[in-house]
Amino acid sequence: MKKTLVAMAVMAAAGAASAQSSVTMFGIVDVTVQYGTGDSNRLSIQPNGHSASRLGIRGVEDLGGGLSANFWLEAGIEPDTGVGQPSNVNNQANPTPLTAGLQGIMFNRRSTIGLAGGFGEIRLGRDYMGHFWAHTAYDPMGANGVGASLAFVNHIAAWPTATRASNSIHYLLPANIGGFYGQVGYHLGDNLRNGAATEDDGNGYSARLGYAAGPFDVSAAFGRADYASTATTGDVTTWNVGGSWNFGVAKASAMYSRTEIDSLAATATRELNSWVAGVNVPVGTGEIRAAYSQSEFTLGTGAEPRSRKVALGYVHNLSKRTAVYTSVAHLRNNGGASAALGRATVSANGKSSGVDIGVRHAF
Amino acid sequence: MKKTLVAMAVMAAAGAASAQSSVTMFGIVDVTVQYGTGDSNRLSIQPNGHSASRLGIRGVEDLGGGLSANFWLEAGIEPDTGVGQPSNVNNQANPTPLTAGLQGIMFNRRSTIGLAGGFGEIRLGRDYMGHFWAHTAYDPMGANGVGASLAFVNHIAAWPTATRASNSIHYLLPANIGGFYGQVGYHLGDNLRNGAATEDDGNGYSARLGYAAGPFDVSAAFGRADYASTATTGDVTTWNVGGSWNFGVAKASAMYSRTEIDSLAATATRELNSWVAGVNVPVGTGEIRAAYSQSEFTLGTGAEPRSRKVALGYVHNLSKRTAVYTSVAHLRNNGGASAALGRATVSANGKSSGVDIGVRHAF
Amino acid sequence: MKKTLVAMAVMAAAGAASAQSSVTMFGIVDVTVQYGTGDSNRLSIQPNGHSASRLGIRGVEDLGGGLSANFWLEAGIEPDTGVGQPSNVNNQANPTPLTAGLQGIMFNRRSTIGLAGGFGEIRLGRDYMGHFWAHTAYDPMGANGVGASLAFVNHIAAWPTATRASNSIHYLLPANIGGFYGQVGYHLGDNLRNGAATEDDGNGYSARLGYAAGPFDVSAAFGRADYASTATTGDVTTWNVGGSWNFGVAKASAMYSRTEIDSLAATATRELNSWVAGVNVPVGTGEIRAAYSQSEFTLGTGAEPRSRKVALGYVHNLSKRTAVYTSVAHLRNNGGASAALGRATVSANGKSSGVDIGVRHAF
Repeated sequence: MKKTLVAMAVMAAAGAASAQSSVTMFGIVDVTVQYGTGDSNRLSIQPNGHSASRLGIRGVEDLGGGLSANFWLEAGIEPDTGVGQPSNVNNQANPTPLTAGLQGIMFNRRSTIGLAGGFGEIRLGRDYMGHFWAHTAYDPMGANGVGASLAFVNHIAAWPTATRASNSIHYLLPANIGGFYGQVGYHLGDNLRNGAATEDDGNGYSARLGYAAGPFDVSAAFGRADYASTATTGDVTTWNVGGSWNFGVAKASAMYSRTEIDSLAATATRELNSWVAGVNVPVGTGEIRAAYSQSEFTLGTGAEPRSRKVALGYVHNLSKRTAVYTSVAHLRNNGGASAALGRATVSANGKSSGVDIGVRHAF
Repeated sequence: MKKTLVAMAVMAAAGAASAQSSVTMFGIVDVTVQYGTGDSNRLSIQPNGHSASRLGIRGVEDLGGGLSANFWLEAGIEPDTGVGQPSNVNNQANPTPLTAGLQGIMFNRRSTIGLAGGFGEIRLGRDYMGHFWAHTAYDPMGANGVGASLAFVNHIAAWPTATRASNSIHYLLPANIGGFYGQVGYHLGDNLRNGAATEDDGNGYSARLGYAAGPFDVSAAFGRADYASTATTGDVTTWNVGGSWNFGVAKASAMYSRTEIDSLAATATRELNSWVAGVNVPVGTGEIRAAYSQSEFTLGTGAEPRSRKVALGYVHNLSKRTAVYTSVAHLRNNGGASAALGRATVSANGKSSGVDIGVRHAF
Repeated sequence: MKKTLVAMAVMAAAGAASAQSSVTMFGIVDVTVQYGTGDSNRLSIQPNGHSASRLGIRGVEDLGGGLSANFWLEAGIEPDTGVGQPSNVNNQANPTPLTAGLQGIMFNRRSTIGLAGGFGEIRLGRDYMGHFWAHTAYDPMGANGVGASLAFVNHIAAWPTATRASNSIHYLLPANIGGFYGQVGYHLGDNLRNGAATEDDGNGYSARLGYAAGPFDVSAAFGRADYASTATTGDVTTWNVGGSWNFGVAKASAMYSRTEIDSLAATATRELNSWVAGVNVPVGTGEIRAAYSQSEFTLGTGAEPRSRKVALGYVHNLSKRTAVYTSVAHLRNNGGASAALGRATVSANGKSSGVDIGVRHAF
């Protein structure tokens, strides 16, 4: 559909000035049969074994003189059941989810308006934070399915703006500056300035700088969000570095992430150190993927629950848009951790395995 | 819009290989002024006097070699108020609806990804169950409005997967196999395998086989869903048979449905026997519709609340996409039943009448 | 996108009969950085500093003989966070909003099906009431952002059908009747006719008649909704008059609105008198806007809380579809009023200022 609607817009354009203008509907539908083993096993049909399902509409308008305007509205969808996904409007505690089956779709994944030109781009709205990108860019498993990097899976749970923030303003570097790319963003908790200890809650910022040339890509990112320190929350700080090298026969990638939380509770997480490394190996029209990832929390008590995962997958591309895929992963816990795969459950220090077999279609 | 977007996609296709690929937005908007009489009457403006209102996007991609991929995302909408409709994510007890006016849209009607070829089609996601189709296919009133078949209306209420199931995998027969058509599907409750009595709740399957040739169409279907037997639930089993014959001057149709529930409660439904029969008579660009339907519950107590409905309607097609319509229906209860039409209310064994006058537009 | 999809439809049309048929996706994305001062200040990123953000799909089908069918599905969206907005299904007390971040999108702004011809147009569904239009048509600030007319802002809060009604049926005058335009609509509360005092709650009607010729536009409107009189509600009656004159160098506009509520509570609002006046001055490709507005409530106690606002703005059009804008406003309260701008808070009789700077893109 992407090409289709661009083509339409070009055809309809009155003249050269708007030849670059378009509005495009796009999406991904990905459903997997998933099985997880542990102390209790689970067979289920789930979304997103390979890619995050979504439905969006985006557009670009050529304003002339090198300037353009754009918008991007992208909703997370769960095609195993048809439901949508919630947002977070103030970048503070995530809302308690609606009863399962009732969440309508909204543009929780991205909802932005931007102006771009030779200077780069300025965007307003709900958007990805710079510190997020390395978690998906350098995970050979693409941060989805049973094999998703533990760095990503646990990073996500860390705080409301781990991946995206509402009420954000971003500046992005222009393309074509010698291989450098990057973004810096600030987000607001939209609180009243009333002198309360929580008046800065949900404010934060993030920055990412990378360099990509030929087979080589490396980036570093930093992010921070303010929360009044209590038993359960406190300022969150994260940084990460990662990179990939495409050897042709295979692409190797790795990333390391460290997150600190200023919580006051002894039992709460104070630090999270995690990393992932692996390879993507093209095989005919398909791809073999392998990754090892680890996450280690440090609690205020000094306990260090740790999980390690090895994942292996194969993606068979039926076209550029459609693929069937399978992946398997095995996870071990120690230090009191009880992570599980495929929605199984394990007790502390248990082991879990998971397998996905599914279909992904992009339009 | 269906034709429009198909045309677009064909125009934009780069070559013959993708000439059959398309993405299509489609929908139905149907609003009716409805009046129901009984012990208390009601005048209201409602959705779906003729057809179920919806908004969807679907696509097909030609993968070559006779294989194709497809997706279908279809949301139920209620255009009298603008709200959406909920789904059910685990095929178990339906969630308590949100306060009226708050339900956002989601792809509750259908949300699937499929691969099709000479072998037929395999689909994953939220989809219609085989045992549902006869309820709409053989109801002259199209299972909507005050005249909708009691077999359909009461079948719907019977259990969460009466019409659709989430977490389903379906196989559908290919077209062009001598008039035979059919589907078989399995759905999961996505429960943990923890040995609980409820671990199979929401699992189920359904199969339908039909034969259509010339004016003749007949089908039979069977479905089952597992629920641990309690005071209110228990395994549900349904089967139905139906058919239609198009005599040219009129199409006659009829169906019979039987559903059993293994509930433990004396006051709960143990059986539901229902049927509908009627005719659709083309008149110029319009159509006259007439139907008689009946539903009889058997409770654990032996009571048999029964409702009977006679319905008459006229649909005036202003085009293939747009129609104005009216229908009237009268319903009688006995055995303690208190069904009513047009959102009126009646006491046990009361009578109710209803009338619709509305407009339906498809795109 | 509007032009794009119309073009597509025309290209795809089979013949002349449907050359006027089209389906169009459209929308507005508007995000502003907003600051409000008062007793407590607030800096936030908000939607709708210039225009109400929305996403919609609408279509027209030429039925031949001068008759056409149309539909319009339009959802309010909040692009600072990606969430949607609720509707009201029975035109009675507005539902308690969902926890922030959970409201999916729905077609709360408009959801209609219509038939139009030489006689005018008949529409069914959720639609704007006639008495609403003057509030936005004659507000130089367009009824959005910190400068929005107090007549509009306080009118909106007055009752559930102040702007739109569900379950409505409207008749609209045809175009080209010598400059006259207008609409009359009736909406239903969809209640059971059970003799309860509340059985008419949510029923109502509204009518608007206007005349526009050359630079001149004037209209008057009346609306009423029924509610059983209690401590908090009672029948609501509103009327307004307004007009504008485009002098070329500037367009001057003004409107006056009066609303009465038959509430029984001494502390509740009995009357609301409000007005706005101002100018829109084109400057190159941009526009300067200035407005003064006032609202005065009369409570059952005789108290008359009053707010007055002066607003000034500039809109710089980068194209017909994209604009950057800024506006500033200052508000004074007396008689016990405590209105504030930019989500600041003030105590009774306090002052508040607000500023917006944002971007709006339409497609």
